Amino acid sequence: MAFIHDDFMLHSDVSKRLYHEYAEALPIIDYHCHLNPEEIATDRQYQNITELTLEGDHYKWRLMRAAGVEEDYITGGADPQEKFKKWAEVVPLLIGNPLYHWTHLELKRYFGIDALLSGETADEIYRHCNQVISQKKYSARSLITQSGAEVVCTTDDPSDALTAHQTLSCGFSVKVLPTFRPDKAILIDRDTFLPYMESIGVSSYTELKKYMLKRLDYFHEHGCRLADHGMDGGIPFARGDAEAVFKRAFSGEAISTQEADLYKTEMNLFFASEYARRGWTLQLHIGALRNTNSAMEKSVGKDAGFDSIDDVSVARPLARFLDTLEADNMLPKTILYNLHPKDNYTLASMAGNFQKSPWKTKVQFGSAWWFNDQRDGMEAQMRTLANFGILPYFVGMLTDSRSFLSFVRHEYFRRILCNLLGTWVTNGEYPSDYDRLGQMVKNICYLNAKQYFGF
Amino acid sequence: MAFIHDDFMLHSDVSKRLYHEYAEALPIIDYHCHLNPEEIATDRQYQNITELTLEGDHYKWRLMRAAGVEEDYITGGADPQEKFKKWAEVVPLLIGNPLYHWTHLELKRYFGIDALLSGETADEIYRHCNQVISQKKYSARSLITQSGAEVVCTTDDPSDALTAHQTLSCGFSVKVLPTFRPDKAILIDRDTFLPYMESIGVSSYTELKKYMLKRLDYFHEHGCRLADHGMDGGIPFARGDAEAVFKRAFSGEAISTQEADLYKTEMNLFFASEYARRGWTLQLHIGALRNTNSAMEKSVGKDAGFDSIDDVSVARPLARFLDTLEADNMLPKTILYNLHPKDNYTLASMAGNFQKSPWKTKVQFGSAWWFNDQRDGMEAQMRTLANFGILPYFVGMLTDSRSFLSFVRHEYFRRILCNLLGTWVTNGEYPSDYDRLGQMVKNICYLNAKQYFGF
Amino acid sequence: MAFIHDDFMLHSDVSKRLYHEYAEALPIIDYHCHLNPEEIATDRQYQNITELTLEGDHYKWRLMRAAGVEEDYITGGADPQEKFKKWAEVVPLLIGNPLYHWTHLELKRYFGIDALLSGETADEIYRHCNQVISQKKYSARSLITQSGAEVVCTTDDPSDALTAHQTLSCGFSVKVLPTFRPDKAILIDRDTFLPYMESIGVSSYTELKKYMLKRLDYFHEHGCRLADHGMDGGIPFARGDAEAVFKRAFSGEAISTQEADLYKTEMNLFFASEYARRGWTLQLHIGALRNTNSAMEKSVGKDAGFDSIDDVSVARPLARFLDTLEADNMLPKTILYNLHPKDNYTLASMAGNFQKSPWKTKVQFGSAWWFNDQRDGMEAQMRTLANFGILPYFVGMLTDSRSFLSFVRHEYFRRILCNLLGTWVTNGEYPSDYDRLGQMVKNICYLNAKQYFGF
Repeated sequence: MAFIHDDFMLHSDVSKRLYHEYAEALPIIDYHCHLNPEEIATDRQYQNITELTLEGDHYKWRLMRAAGVEEDYITGGADPQEKFKKWAEVVPLLIGNPLYHWTHLELKRYFGIDALLSGETADEIYRHCNQVISQKKYSARSLITQSGAEVVCTTDDPSDALTAHQTLSCGFSVKVLPTFRPDKAILIDRDTFLPYMESIGVSSYTELKKYMLKRLDYFHEHGCRLADHGMDGGIPFARGDAEAVFKRAFSGEAISTQEADLYKTEMNLFFASEYARRGWTLQLHIGALRNTNSAMEKSVGKDAGFDSIDDVSVARPLARFLDTLEADNMLPKTILYNLHPKDNYTLASMAGNFQKSPWKTKVQFGSAWWFNDQRDGMEAQMRTLANFGILPYFVGMLTDSRSFLSFVRHEYFRRILCNLLGTWVTNGEYPSDYDRLGQMVKNICYLNAKQYFGF
Repeated sequence: MAFIHDDFMLHSDVSKRLYHEYAEALPIIDYHCHLNPEEIATDRQYQNITELTLEGDHYKWRLMRAAGVEEDYITGGADPQEKFKKWAEVVPLLIGNPLYHWTHLELKRYFGIDALLSGETADEIYRHCNQVISQKKYSARSLITQSGAEVVCTTDDPSDALTAHQTLSCGFSVKVLPTFRPDKAILIDRDTFLPYMESIGVSSYTELKKYMLKRLDYFHEHGCRLADHGMDGGIPFARGDAEAVFKRAFSGEAISTQEADLYKTEMNLFFASEYARRGWTLQLHIGALRNTNSAMEKSVGKDAGFDSIDDVSVARPLARFLDTLEADNMLPKTILYNLHPKDNYTLASMAGNFQKSPWKTKVQFGSAWWFNDQRDGMEAQMRTLANFGILPYFVGMLTDSRSFLSFVRHEYFRRILCNLLGTWVTNGEYPSDYDRLGQMVKNICYLNAKQYFGF
Repeated sequence: MAFIHDDFMLHSDVSKRLYHEYAEALPIIDYHCHLNPEEIATDRQYQNITELTLEGDHYKWRLMRAAGVEEDYITGGADPQEKFKKWAEVVPLLIGNPLYHWTHLELKRYFGIDALLSGETADEIYRHCNQVISQKKYSARSLITQSGAEVVCTTDDPSDALTAHQTLSCGFSVKVLPTFRPDKAILIDRDTFLPYMESIGVSSYTELKKYMLKRLDYFHEHGCRLADHGMDGGIPFARGDAEAVFKRAFSGEAISTQEADLYKTEMNLFFASEYARRGWTLQLHIGALRNTNSAMEKSVGKDAGFDSIDDVSVARPLARFLDTLEADNMLPKTILYNLHPKDNYTLASMAGNFQKSPWKTKVQFGSAWWFNDQRDGMEAQMRTLANFGILPYFVGMLTDSRSFLSFVRHEYFRRILCNLLGTWVTNGEYPSDYDRLGQMVKNICYLNAKQYFGF
């Protein structure tokens, strides 16, 4: 039997039936990813499997480094086939790691390969994949359509002209929508702040807000319905005079942590209110500790696989942030994602404090994020959500990925979801009512997202 | 087969035998709940199932809100049958949630209902339940007695005259005992502090302690053997002049967090010493973040289902608190409950630092509390306790509930306990010695509490 | 069937085969323990099983205290047989506790006993064990050799003359190597600091560093290849003038927490760089909260079973510590151990930020430590490691123990490892490729440690 077989990850008859009858054929709404819209607009053609799987994938880079592979084969200038081989040699070591499963799902679904990737099979698989890429003319668009995607939300800076999205709005069957991610305007204590202000021609907090209002409208016109704030560490909460802090930062003065927190809070509140006004959804990504290795940052650059998980307290400032908005009736639909699993219970319980009719779970406890995006992490997220709220109203999976092959993560999620539901039914914890169970599966895998985001 | 069948939640033969032969028939000692003693004293009669299941149950309220139900059907003035129907429509969505199990256990045990609650069955079940309530004259007392309760400990303010408990001390077969909960005197930074001092006629720290000593004696005379401190967030530890802080707060001055912590610490130490003197047990509930939604607090009031889980550090101040008492030989029997599951290991290990002969586990790692009171949370609590200490000396389950139907949570706990023990035996991790295992079950479900609290 | 049978803790055919064919017969490298080198050098003979199992074992002491046993039978002067009997009476209560398994593994492996220890069997087992001890002349060395140990690393103060290790370097078949543990020089805020400086004749920071450089060389000459830093709580990070802080502390002035953190940071950086220079491995033990019960510390002394788990944030200072070293290319091989399980994900992700070719996982996420050294904790550590990195490059188990019988913990670990791998294979999450799986088992149980530490 092939490693990736029909019932992969499905351990009960109920699980198998739920997956095959309800989940398998559903379209995909990938409401948060980091695909490059330019590549879709220009319909980039791929030359080889290395471009498709290793270019920009810091999950794999981290594992190659942990295996002792030299950086030249990771982010360096080595030959694509040699890079692929180095990766292939690492794969058999990945027992218990999601990459073992993702990798073989990708090889199976896009290339029809049943062989297991390893140093021994690397060259043969490399040749075969490249042949398929060439014969089938694998391109950004063809990979998206064959993956069954219906909507794809990219992640975009407010200053982006969205020309790629404009191109895509006519002439591509899949909706490719922008997401508003204003981190560079919020994270005043990063070295990107001043250059960013310069690039958008803004020199005061008032000007910045004016600028952003225009960009919000522009994004809205281009189909944007989601925003995304990536908080370093926890979410700050401190009120005060953001204009004064902006002024000091803008003039090059050092600002304190307290001042930065104040500024970030005011910005977060400003943006959140505007999202509420427009019926958008705010995604809060909480708990990353980024670019920890300054030596590698110098040689390889930012966001290259040297990030990890912060572990500060998040409950109190998050409560005050949401409460402040709700008190003004300006809390938008919100998805709370945590990077530290200790925050699962904190965020799932917090979401329950701000639910509101008529939304079916207005504040969502988001899908297992990044380091948690694996079997144990997804099960923990869904068990937590089920224990605290209403799992059938969960808006489900997203890839968060830079790779056009990552849509198989939706399959992986669906299998794990169906397995979990099936396990509960098999254990007598929920009746084997396939009408209800099937509807839950369809909702979580597809319909909830469609309805919640208003696509 | 009915959903709630004989072997519900029991997945091995050992588990089934342990439950049916040892656990099932034991009386209940519910040593911590929030039942209203007035309702028991006056033997409140119920008019309908909505009164019994939805009135005051913020667990259900939160889920209804997460489902998008309008507040009018939750805490508002809607018709009881309509409220019940709205709840019933939510129930089939609760896969993986303890309420799915609690609800069907309640319907089965008190009303003999095997049908599953849903929008479709709501009206029929509503009628049937009301018929049973009316025919069997379901009242506060009859529900307690038919539940098999032997002792019930309510939660009471020190200023309470305990007239209900006096009434109940003669003429009711079940012991209904008060619990001393002095939160309003401790939480100096809440808006309830000054009104409370006024209501008890106290204007200095010295007077407050005098007042409390009298109330402690009064409660003791009325059978009280437990106290309960609900800490906001973590437990504070800072020593100093509590009289001075009281004075400032009493005169309406703003006090700092440090001052509040100092005052709370001194009060906690004062009370704990007095409990030790009287042979009482101190329950410390650590880690709640209450009333986070101020808009809803204005419209619905406090403690209405807008609380969540705090995530501050607790180990160091808790260690110093317990150590300070133990150094004076004034540490009472203590039960440590945590709301954040990250604190499981912290509290279980901390308990082990302050054990003392001849008590069998003097400092207890308490039962899974509130958001943790579900299958996963209970298993995590018991596994942690077993890994760190002596599970067979665990004083076991309490309902923590406002509802007279919640006694079924003891059944739920017992099934999960027996299932866990049975799983270990089946896996060969403990011998199948039914004498020992059966004794463990009886101890944890009933005898330990009786002995530990001295009922 | 005996409780400790061939397939104890092995729940699938794959698990059984992996354990019996690959793990069972491997030698042991116990690269971190607290065995007393003097006892090995003098080849201490044991008089009775109480000496071997209860002397110095605070794991058991804590459980006896939780059971209500009087201190006289724990650390006091009671008769050895009575002590053993008190312990034996506790054992049947230890369902779900690793001590139940360790104890019966010890009785089986060293004494051939299948009977279960309890109050009833205590006297018979006591007699039998003592007979074996006497007949087979059980001594420190004979216990080590019959355990299959190849290397044992003790834990030693820098001032230690290592005479025991010198003795052992010739005339004992097992390598007994020292580990450099400079805690007394680092933890400037403990009451051991000044006496320690006096004992080593050091009166300035410069002198201290000179002294330590000599000791590092001396330890290196005696085969030392590992260091161990035991941090109270989290790891500090604050740069500054350590000489000034030393001076103030040395003159008896009180130093602030900030000053202590600064001093500790500079010392940690100094030592770590020196380890890197010598090719040593730094072990960081993070998160202990020690000696919390001052009353018992007065009567029984330090490190006697009154320690628990701290719960502070660790991510940011740890990132800066590792980054500072790596930026200077002076990061040694490092193993990160956490006592709080919330830090599993934090440390496993942090390790991934500082991997470097050609090492196969240069920064290791260490084996489940102390309170985590049980089935659930070990599985959590290995699942985390597998999800974040490369499990097959894990350097594996150590005993961390003071007892010469504790080598059975390696067997326990190996069974749990093989069971986990076998479960994944049985669930179809990894192919049943015994060549690869067997090699993983051998690497994790033995070969990785040998290669990583350079033994």
